[in-house]
Formats: sequence, structure tokens, C-alpha cells
Amino acid sequence: MRVRNKPWAPELIEAHPEKIVEKGQAFKGQWNQRFEKEQPIFIEVGTGKGQFIINMAKKYPQYNFIGIEIQKTVIAIALKNALEEEIPNLQFLYADGAELTDYFEDGEVSKVFLNFSDPWPKTRHEKRRLTFKTFLKVYEQILVKNGEVEFKTDNQGLFEYSLYSLNNYGMTFEGVWLDLHNSEENEDNVETEYEHKFSAKGQPIYKLKAHF
Amino acid sequence: MRVRNKPWAPELIEAHPEKIVEKGQAFKGQWNQRFEKEQPIFIEVGTGKGQFIINMAKKYPQYNFIGIEIQKTVIAIALKNALEEEIPNLQFLYADGAELTDYFEDGEVSKVFLNFSDPWPKTRHEKRRLTFKTFLKVYEQILVKNGEVEFKTDNQGLFEYSLYSLNNYGMTFEGVWLDLHNSEENEDNVETEYEHKFSAKGQPIYKLKAHF
Repeated sequence: MRVRNKPWAPELIEAHPEKIVEKGQAFKGQWNQRFEKEQPIFIEVGTGKGQFIINMAKKYPQYNFIGIEIQKTVIAIALKNALEEEIPNLQFLYADGAELTDYFEDGEVSKVFLNFSDPWPKTRHEKRRLTFKTFLKVYEQILVKNGEVEFKTDNQGLFEYSLYSLNNYGMTFEGVWLDLHNSEENEDNVETEYEHKFSAKGQPIYKLKAHF
Repeated sequence: MRVRNKPWAPELIEAHPEKIVEKGQAFKGQWNQRFEKEQPIFIEVGTGKGQFIINMAKKYPQYNFIGIEIQKTVIAIALKNALEEEIPNLQFLYADGAELTDYFEDGEVSKVFLNFSDPWPKTRHEKRRLTFKTFLKVYEQILVKNGEVEFKTDNQGLFEYSLYSLNNYGMTFEGVWLDLHNSEENEDNVETEYEHKFSAKGQPIYKLKAHF
């Protein structure tokens, strides 16, 4: 997701150290201290403007959620949206998904969500896709044993690639949906802002749920 | 595929023992003797009226092809179509896909094709789907080491299930296509009669290529 630079973004982030972390190393192995309750941690890599992680946190108070985003202006918008309500089980981390092992201890995370990641359609950019094997290795390391990854996209090429990549990494599929919004799985679906806009056009949303 | 009974079907089959086998046990481990040349054997399980296997055999003379079908009237139609030309690398077997280990020696087959198999959408019929684990076990046994399965369907539910089933069996995906006819993979695609009719309506054709 690309957005215009917002002059207020760095200021808002600095004003809310209780809600957003800029230097994740400091909390490695201790993320649960930043929440009211000690409970399983679910992260979203590439959280965008935050609609998904905010609504997930509100829907599932029994889990702690961390929205992770590499773009400062974008995560500032997510933070702004999150601050409209009191959501004690939600935190943000301004960080690069490739470096998550610097910020999370092995087994510290219980589930990873990847939603509408940049498809990087060119073959030479394969390594940048969030379902490329080097990313899967990172998720595997920070996840609990048999930890789950839930992946949604509207991009056919990225979904084909991700089915291939997760399978070849040795992950076990729990479910595949080629038209999520017209499936039973949709009953519990929490939409991202992009998903909402996109599916309104009648395009299918793909979902894959798998564990290591 | 369901077709009306054809009175001429059993007679045609009996008249062509050089082209179609009714008692596959007799050729277990010796299928190559039925062909002009000894070369890798590719089989199609559920060959229908034969368009795919006939055109594959004509396109790839360097392989031997066997079309397998459980419905007598249907395989008689395939045989009739095949007899219009001289295709020395094509044979038919009237048999049940679940019993292939009775008809082929371990490792006798180099590739299995599954095209537009009956989706058996009801959960209680899962065991009848040609990508259910008991069928995969049969294919694995008769296939060479790392033998390939190529699967095509227009049925979304069956494709979702098959991705799940082949992955959970431990098979390695070589490629996944969610819209075969609009992909590079289509360049070498040989259509089945059903595929041709169906894709003309603009519906996507799914393809999965995987090995044990």
C-alpha cells in the first residue's frame, strides 16, 4: 500500500509509546508485558491502515494482537484509527517483516496473518513476496510449534505462488478457499479495508490456512 | 460422465482386443508389450470419451498412453474415436481406478492424469473423489519414484479439496494454475471434450501438477 507522506505521522507515533514500538529489539521475548493480560500473541505482517487487526482485537479479546508495518505513514494511520477506541489487546510495531527474528523470541508468536500483501509479480522480485521461503523461515522460527499462517489475497498470481511456496516449504494445509466470501469460512471472516473495497466489485478473495 | 447405454458398446470392445483390455491383471508388469515401442507409460484415470488421451498420444509419440475408464459405454466411445486413426502408442483399459495396483506393477507408470473427475461434492462421498488419499496411495504405488500427477478441473470445490488432499498426503507441488487457459501453461495444454465445452463459457480451468 502506498500513501502520501503525512507530516503528522512521526509526531503521532512519538506521542504514543504505550501503543506503538519503534525499536522492537527492546521487547524481544517480553511482548506480553505490553498487554493487560498474558495470552497468545497473533501478529499481522503488513498491517496497512489497521482495519483487520483492530477488528480482530475487538472480536477476540482472549488473544493479544500486534500489527506490523514497514511504512511509517501507513502505520501512523493504523495507530490513529486504533486510538479512537480503548483496545487493550492491540499493539503496533514499526518494523520490516524480514527482521522479525530480531524482535520476537523463538516460539513467542502463536499465529501469523498475511493479508493482501504486495504481489511483486515479476519473477526477479520473488524474494520480496511475504510467502517466499526466507519469510516462511522467519515465521517458523518465531511461531510456536505447529504455528499457523493465515493468508488472504485477491491476487491470483500471488495465491498460485503461495500455494506452491508453502507446500514446497513443507507446510501442511488446513484449508484452501478460492472464493472466501461465498464460502462457510466467511462466517468468521474479518475484512481488511482493501478486501472490503475489492470484493464489492465481485472479485474472488483467496484464503489459505496452513501450519508448519 | 453419464451416457445412455449403447447396444454396440460391448461388441465393439470385444472386436478390438488389440486396442482395449478388459482383464488388466493379465498385463500387470507387461504393459509395454502391448505397444510398438518400449517407452514411459502415462495413464489417464477416468478417460471419458478419450479426446485428451487420443490427442496426447498423437502429440507425444515418445510416450505410451493408456486411457482407463470404469464405464463400459463411455470407454467404448473413446475406443470408437481412437479407431478412426492409427495411434500405435495408445491403449485402453476398462477398469476401476481404485484397483490399479491389480493391473500395474509397482513403478510401471511414469505419470497419472486426472481430468475433470466427478467432484462428489458431499462430504460423505469424499472417499470417491479421485484425489482422496486412498487413490493417491494407489497412484504412488504404481508410479515411478517421484512420479507425477497432473490434475485439471473446472470444479472449485474439488480443486480446493485436491490442493488440501495432495498437500496433506505429502506431495510436492510443481505448479498451480487458477486460470489455466489464460496462463503460459496453456501453450502445451491438450483439452478434454468437457474442458473445451466448459471453457468456451468463460469459466476458469484449474490445474495442479505435483509429484510424490
